[in-house]
Parts: sequence; C-alpha cells; structure tokens
Amino acid sequence: MEKGKMLYEGKAKQIFETNNPNEVIVRFKDDATAFNAQKRGSVDLKGEMNNAITTLIFEYLSQKGIATHFIKQLDEREQLVKKVNIIPLEMVVRNYSAGSMAKRLGVEEGIKSPVTIFDLCLKNDELGDPLINDHHAVFLGVATYEELDEMYELTSDINDILIELFGRMNIILVDFKIELGKTADGKIILADEISPDTCRLWDKETMKKLDKDRFRRDLGEVTEAYVEIYERLKKVLGK
Amino acid sequence: MEKGKMLYEGKAKQIFETNNPNEVIVRFKDDATAFNAQKRGSVDLKGEMNNAITTLIFEYLSQKGIATHFIKQLDEREQLVKKVNIIPLEMVVRNYSAGSMAKRLGVEEGIKSPVTIFDLCLKNDELGDPLINDHHAVFLGVATYEELDEMYELTSDINDILIELFGRMNIILVDFKIELGKTADGKIILADEISPDTCRLWDKETMKKLDKDRFRRDLGEVTEAYVEIYERLKKVLGK
Ligand SMILES: Nc1ncnc2c1ncn2[C@@H]1O[C@H](COP(=O)(O)OP(=O)(O)O)[C@@H](O)[C@H]1O
Ligand SMILES: Nc1ncnc2c1ncn2[C@@H]1O[C@H](COP(=O)(O)OP(=O)(O)O)[C@@H](O)[C@H]1O
Ligand SMILES: [Mg+2]
Ligand SMILES: [Mg+2]
Repeated sequence: MEKGKMLYEGKAKQIFETNNPNEVIVRFKDDATAFNAQKRGSVDLKGEMNNAITTLIFEYLSQKGIATHFIKQLDEREQLVKKVNIIPLEMVVRNYSAGSMAKRLGVEEGIKSPVTIFDLCLKNDELGDPLINDHHAVFLGVATYEELDEMYELTSDINDILIELFGRMNIILVDFKIELGKTADGKIILADEISPDTCRLWDKETMKKLDKDRFRRDLGEVTEAYVEIYERLKKVLGK
Repeated sequence: MEKGKMLYEGKAKQIFETNNPNEVIVRFKDDATAFNAQKRGSVDLKGEMNNAITTLIFEYLSQKGIATHFIKQLDEREQLVKKVNIIPLEMVVRNYSAGSMAKRLGVEEGIKSPVTIFDLCLKNDELGDPLINDHHAVFLGVATYEELDEMYELTSDINDILIELFGRMNIILVDFKIELGKTADGKIILADEISPDTCRLWDKETMKKLDKDRFRRDLGEVTEAYVEIYERLKKVLGK
C-alpha cells in the first residue's frame, strides 16, 4: 500500500490517496481550531492521541456491529480507511446541554436531557456549520428523508454504545459529532473521527472537562486531557 | 361583552381581557418592527388591514375545518377571540426559499422547494426567536413529540388551504408563520394572526412583494401592499 498525493487538507487532518482507489490515508495533525477557525492553535500530542483514540473507538464500534470506514492504524499519526463520499451533514448528539445548544436555548450547561437530542448541522465552514433540519437537507439535495432516518438510527446506536463505553471510563458523554459517508456501493457508514476534538467528555466525579473545550476556553492542561482519555480507554479495553 | 384591562402589549397587537375569562380582545396596531425589533416604525392602515385580513382568513380556514381562536370582528381594529395558552413556538412553513432560511443555507430567494419546509422557532425575543428542532422543544418542556406531530399536521393542512386561497388571488404563498395555543380543555387550535405581517406574498405575474418585506427592506408602498392583499382577498371570497 503506497501513500500518494494529498487529496484534502482540513483543519485537523489530511487525507492522502493510496494505490487503491477505494482507500485513503487519514493523517492526524496537532493543529486545533475553534469558533469556525477564528481561534487557531496547536496542541502537543493531539494528532497522535486522536489517531490512537479514534482507532480504539472505531474498532470497538465495529465489534458492536457498527459499519465504519476504519481499516487499520498505520503509525502514530496515520490510519488507513475506506474512501467514502462524506455526506455534508454533521450529526450531533446531545445527552446533556452544552455549547451552542445551551446558548441557543438560553439554558445552563450540564442539564441532563430526558430525551436524546439530535442536531443536524450543515457541514459548511463559510456558513458557520449552521443548525438545519431534515427539510433543509432534503431541499439542498444532500440527503433524502429515508437516508436521514437511517442516519439518525445509526447515530443513536453509536450514542448508546459510547455512553456505555465512556461510562466504564468514569466519563459522562455530554455530546459528540460524527460524520457519515457513502461507500462506492451506496452504503452509509461511520467516517471521520471520534476523539476529544469531536466529543464533550466530563469526568464523572470532578466534572473536569477532558476534551477540546480546554483549548476553546483556554482552560489549560489540554494535552493532559487527551492523554487521560487515551489512558482510560486503553484500560477499560484491556489494551 | 365588556373590554377590561390590557393583559399584554406586543410588537403589533394588544390583548385585553373581557368579562368572559375564556375570551380576550385582540387590538391590531399600526406599529411595525423588524429584525428582532432593531428596526421600528409605523405603517398607516396596517392595524385595520391586518384585522380585516385575519378575520377573512380565519373565517375561511374555519369553514375548511380548521379549529381557530377567532370568534368575531368587533370594529376596525379589534376582534374577539378565545383565550388560549400560546405554545411558545413559531410554526414556520416555507414553500419557496426566502429570508432567514435563504441566508442560513446560502441559497437565493425564490427557489420553489420540492418538499414543504417546516421550521420550528422558539418564540423568545431575547434569544432572537432561534430556529430549534423537536428535541429542543421537548427538552425545554414546551411540547411533547406527540403534540409536535399534531402541530405539524395542523400547520400542513393550513398551508394547503392557504396555497389554494392565495393562488386564486394570483399570489404565491412563499412562507408564513403561525402560532398555536391550547384552550382551557387542552385542544390545540390556531391563534394569533395571518396577515402580510406574518406571510411572504408575491404577485404571481410581477413577483412584486406584497407583505412586510416592503417595510423590512424599505421598498416603499407598504400600506398599498396591505390594501392590495385585502382587496384581492375580498374579491375571491365574494365579500
Ligand atoms: N473515509 C473518508 N473518506 C473521505 N473523506 C473523509 C473520510 N473520513 C473523513 N473525511 C473527510 O476528511 C476531512 C478530514 O479533515 P478535517 O481536518 O476533519 O477537515 P474539516 O476541516 O473539513 O473538518 C473532513 O473533511 C472529512 O469530512
Ligand atoms: N387567542 C389568544 N390568547 C392569548 N394570547 C394570544 C392569542 N392570540 C395571540 N396571542 C398572543 O398575543 C400577542 C399578540 O401581540 P403581538 O404584537 O403579536 O406580540 P409579540 O410581539 O409577542 O409577537 C402575542 O404574544 C400572541 O402570542
Ligand atoms: Mg473535521
Ligand atoms: Mg406577534
């Protein structure tokens, strides 16, 4: 398997082609951005930690029956994945109020929701990844109602599995964002990453934030949080 | 029936109590606001026109089987209605792209949607009436999923009836907003108003805007637009 030219450089990762047209390499960078890239910085070890964490989580989800793009980890920063056409929607799941939702609704952060909250956001940096709804997605032609139903179901299944996994790590899964993509044969699978960059993770005892909010809000000990998640994850998975 | 003290003064209307605790008087003002009340002004005859237009539309919807709060018109500016507990959600329906939706999605105005678009907004001036989704409404406790389903169905039925009515007036119903309320016995009915303040109405031939966008966007001939809608409405209804 040969690493070819860079196909895309995003805010946190790069994508490289391989000699197999159905596979790409994801390279995790230490770069960090927030608030629609208005805040920029770098977090030591973040690329390595997110690569390792995403690997462990995608392998675990796969064991639990979730179809993912993950093939194998290549080295500290890189993993080989199935190439997909990313559906330009961010599937956000919230078990507790936080972030933009708390602001939008004028409520405190950290309120446990009696129902699972699914936010659909359009993946479009220029528009600021706006919250949209199913009708907007269908209007834009990015998904059908049937596909959206399937996407919510997949997202809900992933939430159930992750709540349990992070629970064993003594962590509250406050919210997270995933991206789904379509394979060459039209199947919708989990792509991108699941890491402290894309989840809000609070320690159950201390409520300490162990995620990208430490970077966003200048809370310090950013690298330490990513390492802590990796260590706890390895421990509960017996790795 | 006696007019009692003012219970509420909103941006465009006042609500007065009556000697019947289940009925209130709505008084339509000429005051106009836009962009979350950042822009303020007054439109000659608006109160009278909106009172008359809402009367004709609510009577028509009632004939078509829609449960509304409307009881009777009292004079040029006032109407008697059933008192309801307003559900603090704005039910927005869009048949064409326009306004905040066009901006949010980064699309032109005036694109016909292949599906009916329903936007749920939280009726909260301080928060800027944000777009939300069903899960947020349930999280906030303002409605249950079952009530929301009923509300969308009612809103969809109203849309069907209004598209046909405005169609006969040679007008495109681009979008509109309604408010629903609960009666003392828990029934969900149509409340508030339906007028050029709450609809986008474009002439079918000329595409001329005949609604509050003339005020919002300083297009001139504002009063004329409200009068035009009233005249066409009377004509198709044979009044
Ligand atoms: N399996 C995949 N195939 C193709 N593209 C992918 C795959 N997984 C993730 N991507 C895309 O690769 C990019 C990863 O880089 P990232 O830094 O996260 O970008 P962005 O700034 O656009 O979020 C994202 O645009 C993501 O949608
Ligand atoms: N039948 C009703 N019973 C009680 N309140 C009503 C009824 N119909 C409308 N309302 C409320 O009365 C107010 C009408 O005044 P308006 O100027 O539109 O206020 P606002 O600035 O809050 O939109 C609104 O808050 C509306 O929700
Ligand atoms: Mg990304
Ligand atoms: Mg109003």
